[in-house]
Amino acid sequence: MRYEELTIEGRNAVLEAFRSGKTIDKLFILEGCQDGPVRSITREARKHDTIVNFVTKERLDQLSETKKHQGVIAFAAAYKYAEVEDMLKLAEEKGEPPFLILLDNIEDPHNLGAIIRTANLAGAHGVIIPKRRAVGLTATVAKTSAGAINYTPVAKVTNLSNTIKELKEKGMWFVCADMDGTVMYELDLKGPIGLVIGSEGEGVSKLVKENCDFTAAIPMAGEIDSLNASVAAGVLAYEIVRQRM
Amino acid sequence: MRYEELTIEGRNAVLEAFRSGKTIDKLFILEGCQDGPVRSITREARKHDTIVNFVTKERLDQLSETKKHQGVIAFAAAYKYAEVEDMLKLAEEKGEPPFLILLDNIEDPHNLGAIIRTANLAGAHGVIIPKRRAVGLTATVAKTSAGAINYTPVAKVTNLSNTIKELKEKGMWFVCADMDGTVMYELDLKGPIGLVIGSEGEGVSKLVKENCDFTAAIPMAGEIDSLNASVAAGVLAYEIVRQRM
Repeated sequence: MRYEELTIEGRNAVLEAFRSGKTIDKLFILEGCQDGPVRSITREARKHDTIVNFVTKERLDQLSETKKHQGVIAFAAAYKYAEVEDMLKLAEEKGEPPFLILLDNIEDPHNLGAIIRTANLAGAHGVIIPKRRAVGLTATVAKTSAGAINYTPVAKVTNLSNTIKELKEKGMWFVCADMDGTVMYELDLKGPIGLVIGSEGEGVSKLVKENCDFTAAIPMAGEIDSLNASVAAGVLAYEIVRQRM
Repeated sequence: MRYEELTIEGRNAVLEAFRSGKTIDKLFILEGCQDGPVRSITREARKHDTIVNFVTKERLDQLSETKKHQGVIAFAAAYKYAEVEDMLKLAEEKGEPPFLILLDNIEDPHNLGAIIRTANLAGAHGVIIPKRRAVGLTATVAKTSAGAINYTPVAKVTNLSNTIKELKEKGMWFVCADMDGTVMYELDLKGPIGLVIGSEGEGVSKLVKENCDFTAAIPMAGEIDSLNASVAAGVLAYEIVRQRM
């Protein structure tokens, strides 16, 4: 499943990467650059739903390893992404109600890695991350996942709220983590469920939260604000495990 | 409570740090060095139970910021350590059965920081770490604790097994995390309890495990071996919270 994490630089190399089916996590293009090859690249990016960042020459030079980027740099994923559909199939094969973990803009690769690790051991059928403003499957994520990335499917979606809506139509329930919610022990988390974890700084975004059925709070006794995101994900995932046992 | 993390270099500076009452986390002395001032320093180290590492000149040069270490470098704690006794008093003041988290050789500062954060929010009365082969209260730990280090006392002990024995005589029970144990939901974790978490690589050491009353297992459904140490600590700490509610 694994292929190397790649920084791909230069117009032909990036275009070729798209055409060969590599998953491009991020694409950086020199702002104002509009010639034929660059247009072909942005067309491929649109086709594959890749986020394009238009940046200054200084930024590109900084990202470049070869210093021959020709105005285009792409970051390819270190691992292949799965489809959400694959996760539902996996649950069905195991004869279990689907259990997915959705991450609303987790930016720290150590947290993403630890959450994939937790997902594997808690018996979740997959992890869903958004394309924008979130870390992808980098080499650091792979390392901190302690191998879980080889077993637990990770899907990348354009819009987390839309994915939630689609999955709700298939009978799933969604619970998001928020300190204003109902204490998790009082919620029924046994059915087909998606657990939504917010980013470290901002929690779950408003729109995503509105699309969830419940809000679950972890009881908090102390003086500080919040648990580490991967610890919160672990505590909530295991409350689901407990209720399902 | 806070004072800056310090690398203290040179014989007088290190001796002065000991005498002024600073907590020295680690002391590095040039191997073979045995003159008067160095002997005064090792005597102070013994008095304060500081671990002394005898190292090569190359290692000292590498650790040195000033390049004028005179064969002696000390790392002072970024934060003050508490005493185990303070934690028991804190529990008594709150009218709660003591709940302590003991860490058997956690070396990753991010894990220690996340666990102090969890301890604070789960209502634990303190975190106990060993002097040897473990990370101390460094600036990285402080940062990843998200401020919890200012509220939740952390004590450093010479021998974790001895501390467990002493606390058992005061009526505490100890549960250690290990995948060979009883599923945590089946254990009674409501009384005065110490939760022992092992290191990432090796788990809880044999001697420490032998001194514990129970072994608690987190149920694991997946293909990989273990949760991240701070996630495991969170899941177990919150099982204690749930049972106490």
